[in-house]
Amino acid sequence: MKELLKYGMVGGGPGSFIADSHRRAMRIDGETQLVAGAFSRSFEKCRQTGEELGLDPERCYADFREMARAEAARPDGIDFVVIVTPNAAHYPAAKAFLEAGIPVVCDKPLCLTVEQGEELVRLSEEKGLLFMLTYTYFGHATVRYMKEYIESGKLGKIRNVMAEYPQGWLAYEGEWGGKQGEWRCDPKLSGGVNCLGDIGTHAENMVSMVTGLKIRRLLAKLDKLVPGRVLDDNDVVLLEYEGGAVGSYWISQCAIGHRNSLQIRIYGENGSLLWKQEESEELTIVDHDGNVSKVFRGPAPSASGASFARLPAGHTEGFYEAMANLYRSYTRCLRAKKEGTFTPDMVDFPTVKEGLDSVRFIHKALESQEGGNVWVEM
Amino acid sequence: MKELLKYGMVGGGPGSFIADSHRRAMRIDGETQLVAGAFSRSFEKCRQTGEELGLDPERCYADFREMARAEAARPDGIDFVVIVTPNAAHYPAAKAFLEAGIPVVCDKPLCLTVEQGEELVRLSEEKGLLFMLTYTYFGHATVRYMKEYIESGKLGKIRNVMAEYPQGWLAYEGEWGGKQGEWRCDPKLSGGVNCLGDIGTHAENMVSMVTGLKIRRLLAKLDKLVPGRVLDDNDVVLLEYEGGAVGSYWISQCAIGHRNSLQIRIYGENGSLLWKQEESEELTIVDHDGNVSKVFRGPAPSASGASFARLPAGHTEGFYEAMANLYRSYTRCLRAKKEGTFTPDMVDFPTVKEGLDSVRFIHKALESQEGGNVWVEM
Amino acid sequence: MKELLKYGMVGGGPGSFIADSHRRAMRIDGETQLVAGAFSRSFEKCRQTGEELGLDPERCYADFREMARAEAARPDGIDFVVIVTPNAAHYPAAKAFLEAGIPVVCDKPLCLTVEQGEELVRLSEEKGLLFMLTYTYFGHATVRYMKEYIESGKLGKIRNVMAEYPQGWLAYEGEWGGKQGEWRCDPKLSGGVNCLGDIGTHAENMVSMVTGLKIRRLLAKLDKLVPGRVLDDNDVVLLEYEGGAVGSYWISQCAIGHRNSLQIRIYGENGSLLWKQEESEELTIVDHDGNVSKVFRGPAPSASGASFARLPAGHTEGFYEAMANLYRSYTRCLRAKKEGTFTPDMVDFPTVKEGLDSVRFIHKALESQEGGNVWVEM
Amino acid sequence: MKELLKYGMVGGGPGSFIADSHRRAMRIDGETQLVAGAFSRSFEKCRQTGEELGLDPERCYADFREMARAEAARPDGIDFVVIVTPNAAHYPAAKAFLEAGIPVVCDKPLCLTVEQGEELVRLSEEKGLLFMLTYTYFGHATVRYMKEYIESGKLGKIRNVMAEYPQGWLAYEGEWGGKQGEWRCDPKLSGGVNCLGDIGTHAENMVSMVTGLKIRRLLAKLDKLVPGRVLDDNDVVLLEYEGGAVGSYWISQCAIGHRNSLQIRIYGENGSLLWKQEESEELTIVDHDGNVSKVFRGPAPSASGASFARLPAGHTEGFYEAMANLYRSYTRCLRAKKEGTFTPDMVDFPTVKEGLDSVRFIHKALESQEGGNVWVEM
Repeated sequence: MKELLKYGMVGGGPGSFIADSHRRAMRIDGETQLVAGAFSRSFEKCRQTGEELGLDPERCYADFREMARAEAARPDGIDFVVIVTPNAAHYPAAKAFLEAGIPVVCDKPLCLTVEQGEELVRLSEEKGLLFMLTYTYFGHATVRYMKEYIESGKLGKIRNVMAEYPQGWLAYEGEWGGKQGEWRCDPKLSGGVNCLGDIGTHAENMVSMVTGLKIRRLLAKLDKLVPGRVLDDNDVVLLEYEGGAVGSYWISQCAIGHRNSLQIRIYGENGSLLWKQEESEELTIVDHDGNVSKVFRGPAPSASGASFARLPAGHTEGFYEAMANLYRSYTRCLRAKKEGTFTPDMVDFPTVKEGLDSVRFIHKALESQEGGNVWVEM
Repeated sequence: MKELLKYGMVGGGPGSFIADSHRRAMRIDGETQLVAGAFSRSFEKCRQTGEELGLDPERCYADFREMARAEAARPDGIDFVVIVTPNAAHYPAAKAFLEAGIPVVCDKPLCLTVEQGEELVRLSEEKGLLFMLTYTYFGHATVRYMKEYIESGKLGKIRNVMAEYPQGWLAYEGEWGGKQGEWRCDPKLSGGVNCLGDIGTHAENMVSMVTGLKIRRLLAKLDKLVPGRVLDDNDVVLLEYEGGAVGSYWISQCAIGHRNSLQIRIYGENGSLLWKQEESEELTIVDHDGNVSKVFRGPAPSASGASFARLPAGHTEGFYEAMANLYRSYTRCLRAKKEGTFTPDMVDFPTVKEGLDSVRFIHKALESQEGGNVWVEM
Repeated sequence: MKELLKYGMVGGGPGSFIADSHRRAMRIDGETQLVAGAFSRSFEKCRQTGEELGLDPERCYADFREMARAEAARPDGIDFVVIVTPNAAHYPAAKAFLEAGIPVVCDKPLCLTVEQGEELVRLSEEKGLLFMLTYTYFGHATVRYMKEYIESGKLGKIRNVMAEYPQGWLAYEGEWGGKQGEWRCDPKLSGGVNCLGDIGTHAENMVSMVTGLKIRRLLAKLDKLVPGRVLDDNDVVLLEYEGGAVGSYWISQCAIGHRNSLQIRIYGENGSLLWKQEESEELTIVDHDGNVSKVFRGPAPSASGASFARLPAGHTEGFYEAMANLYRSYTRCLRAKKEGTFTPDMVDFPTVKEGLDSVRFIHKALESQEGGNVWVEM
Repeated sequence: MKELLKYGMVGGGPGSFIADSHRRAMRIDGETQLVAGAFSRSFEKCRQTGEELGLDPERCYADFREMARAEAARPDGIDFVVIVTPNAAHYPAAKAFLEAGIPVVCDKPLCLTVEQGEELVRLSEEKGLLFMLTYTYFGHATVRYMKEYIESGKLGKIRNVMAEYPQGWLAYEGEWGGKQGEWRCDPKLSGGVNCLGDIGTHAENMVSMVTGLKIRRLLAKLDKLVPGRVLDDNDVVLLEYEGGAVGSYWISQCAIGHRNSLQIRIYGENGSLLWKQEESEELTIVDHDGNVSKVFRGPAPSASGASFARLPAGHTEGFYEAMANLYRSYTRCLRAKKEGTFTPDMVDFPTVKEGLDSVRFIHKALESQEGGNVWVEM
């Protein structure tokens, strides 16, 4: 039997949607085992969560720093840690584990400031530790097809990118949608940016990873449309990329009717691509002459398609499988490290560097907003 | 038998797609009769077109000014004129007919400069002449439903408007798509604005007429993405409306895969609306709680629906019927004028004033672009 | 100027939806002129309709037989007649005009009995008169693409045809949907078959004309699902065609949620085709390997596409334009007859023969139903 | 920590798609643990699979009978068995475990003959053992909404059911699509029915469970459309249910363009419902007046929605989650049995009785086919 990789978790106490998703996603492929955790700032709650998850009580920690030290010291310590706290705790937690020599998986956004991000990049490089940011949607096989299609040159030079990520759940005055909404709308917990940091970075990261385009400058307009909101809830960012392409991202959490409508459209000189998260089993490809066709997730139509195949086309995969694909990539690299066969080109997941790119993106957008929606160079 | 209204046409020689559309659209309802024309700058071609259309050769004119004078002088002169020339000729032609006391229907955009537009507004008011701009898509019954839905208050206060109008036919380097592309890409004929003036004004007009929102200020980014293009072919305009709503319009003629994809999404505090020109038989309505439903063109679901009903739902109507609806509105008013029953609230079509709004919009966008994508007050 | 073809109309008094559609459709292309009519069994109403339509009162007839005689005798008599009465009057009217030597356009279904249909086929052949049945949906350019695609051999041998035509407007107990429903649910007026004759023949005709398949035998189940209905309102017909293909047609007028949802799916050994009337601007083509693509109405993608082009793709055409396409085909042949250039291969519209096929189809289906849903040979 | 339920597996050696799906699905919720198996008729392969899955070699059995005896005898024996062999082995395996007193989960179809099915029903009742048939698609929360919607009476009396399940993967002559196709096209392994038994039963079961309708009689037409096929690959079944409703099911494995297109449409006197497996996150509801709306999987809109909620709407779930929902229902009942709180009304999954219904359905369909497509009473 293949040995399971052992992981620990920071954050993920009762009611945490994203921690639950990480755990379920990993179980689908059955390559990992949760053995340690600092699930909550309350030790009580942490122990309780640990018990529910079948953990050895010794490995339920009151504090992530203690966990990092203790796990690093154990001969059977964790192979990696998964950080799924509110945004503000990402940085100190990631730092603690990197310093303890433990590879990190961190939910997005990476951290609150560019300096923090730079430090995490530096630390992970110095220590030679694999660091994945879980931009879940990049995990979809159809998104990998997009990337491959572009890399193959079939789209030609990219001219324009239209990305959007509207949601409607925070459209209501005086309502925050429960625990989720609470910390997302609280400046202290979320780092001063609500909508753009929370979901805008998904759009930014996907465009960046799929197209390879580097932002040259941007102009952002961050609005608070729901009365009483203290953080932005509807944003537009105009972009110019190196090489001449342009882009526009629309991000909203107050667009009633949208559940989770991340969408990316890429226009090249020889055609275009359309991908929608809510219909993630398909990718629309338009060729040079405007002929429209669809390809579907499945063993075909690409090498990465085969690599991420579980179910035949028509048997739907979703959010958990996308996240499981990220872990499939990450654990493949971790195992290769253990076996001494790792090479840097094996990394096919978002890393701490892409995490830093996103933090820069947020800060430049804030700078543009504060300057009166002016162009800001990256 | 109902007496047919007599009309003349300026522009619309061989190969004119839009003139042909106007003539076909009017024939659907059979309320009008073409009796005069200055179809081309070449008298030869004008006579030929007139012959093909069954006109009395005497009423084929070498020049629109001559036509205006002659028709105004005839006892059986035209009841209105339809101007379907390239953009640059709209103003002088409209002016000539207004001065001759003849009501005008003019294709969009109204004219090239704000001063021209102001003069045409003034002239039409002074003379008391009905002046319609044929923003065709406003003619769809489903678009009228949107307007009524908003006016009813069901959507609540509007917060955000996302409009887009991408096409792909001018995406190709060194190709202009025949006669259509030629004058649209030629600064002299098109008045210095290609994409924004040609199709962006459809988006601007529809948002304006459907929502009633007034633009307070805008920030425009007009790009030339296809190598060799001298006029913009891909534009984004950010908007702030009076009262606090925001908006974003994307207009492109180089987005391969889009045939004619005008789309408007309106987000209010109590729901949202989605309309797509290419699926113009339906309107998507989202209520306060995010429930999604569709209504379809047909005698239901509104007073204007009944007023513009020809075919039952499921028997598709299209572009010609939308244009015919505009003419239905216009001729209803013209007949009321003749019969002395006209009142200003009967006007339910885009007028010279909306035409002027569009010209202002274009010029403010150009100003914003020239200033480096800065905010420009309306 | 091209001379207009003169036509007369039988049926089409006040409130007739289908007569109105024929008149509007013809006006779109402006090739014909209505000059005579026997619009109603009431002479009063006939005169009134004629007056509204601008006809010479002399050419408003109390009776279609009188009209046939009188028009045949005039030097400026009609070039063809359009029959848009309730079903039961199709046969005597068509017979009268054929005997008078006047070409006929008749709405579907052709007539009530196979004997009537055979007589009309014989008469039209003996007299050498063009006879069109207006199966409107065959007029769509996208339907012609289907036909051409199949004729090109790209689909390979056809294996299975799934056609359906559900509507919902007669789903309500004790309601007949106004005048339309009234005669459609009355056995005397409709000829004893409601749903199958009224809309099922659209499916049968389209499959027949698009695929060229000949029915070898059929098994029909005609149901009355709405309490109180005296005629069928929900039907399934199983088919075996010559050559081994099979098929299944579902027809319903009590399927709430469907407006007018004719749909045809054709499965061959090398791919499949899907066409939906309510999305008639597109055709879905699946190739041998299951790749899905869409083609859109427009000048491309075929010879007939160019021949039936009015508007560029993305500018929607609909029901009237489909019907206008049939008239375009018919008048082209009529003119060729006048000019002596007609050849039988020019006929690209449904004729009296296809009309007879439909009547046979209905009668065989009734026979199967009466036999207890047994196979009946054609 | 909640104690994991222990299960064993019969079938599921290398390359078994469905066994792999069962294991992954169960892991998502983390309520069960695989501890024993008879994965293959080859002991070698069985041991190898067991090793890969981390099983104690002692609990890898050469034979399912041995496994049933041995596990029943262990104090830590399995809580239930999952049977995922080719169809022909379902019956003997299920029998062996029932006789050993072990609850059974069996993939569909239940068995090959009605007699076998009756015996399994009897055995499971006598022994009081929970027996689930994994009709996966019933697990979708949206399918449960359908069932609840109908039970609520909102649809009124059901009049017509249109179900279809086309696939395209067996459309190719001389190709069987690998291991999957091989046993599905081999009469000995599949029990003499290919398409109808394999996927037709999904349609039959879903209609039955969602609507509660009982089949009164059926008429089936089972065709072999691909040259060389020895079993049916394209079927139509006409149905009459008790109470007067009618139905029609179309099942195909040679319909190129369809990946896995199970679809169910239910027409009632007060509206209709539409559900598509490939868009399983939504359900289309049409009300009495034909208004069309969509509801989406998520905590809302029903009690069972909340009960099966993992991810918020817009975060896609798929095939594995549907199957996990079945196991969620099943293990809830198993635990209740252990705790003595079980009551029969807790059973909300397809059982051995529904499995027997499906076998009867297949055999009646074969009888109808052999009789020349005649009506056969249930």
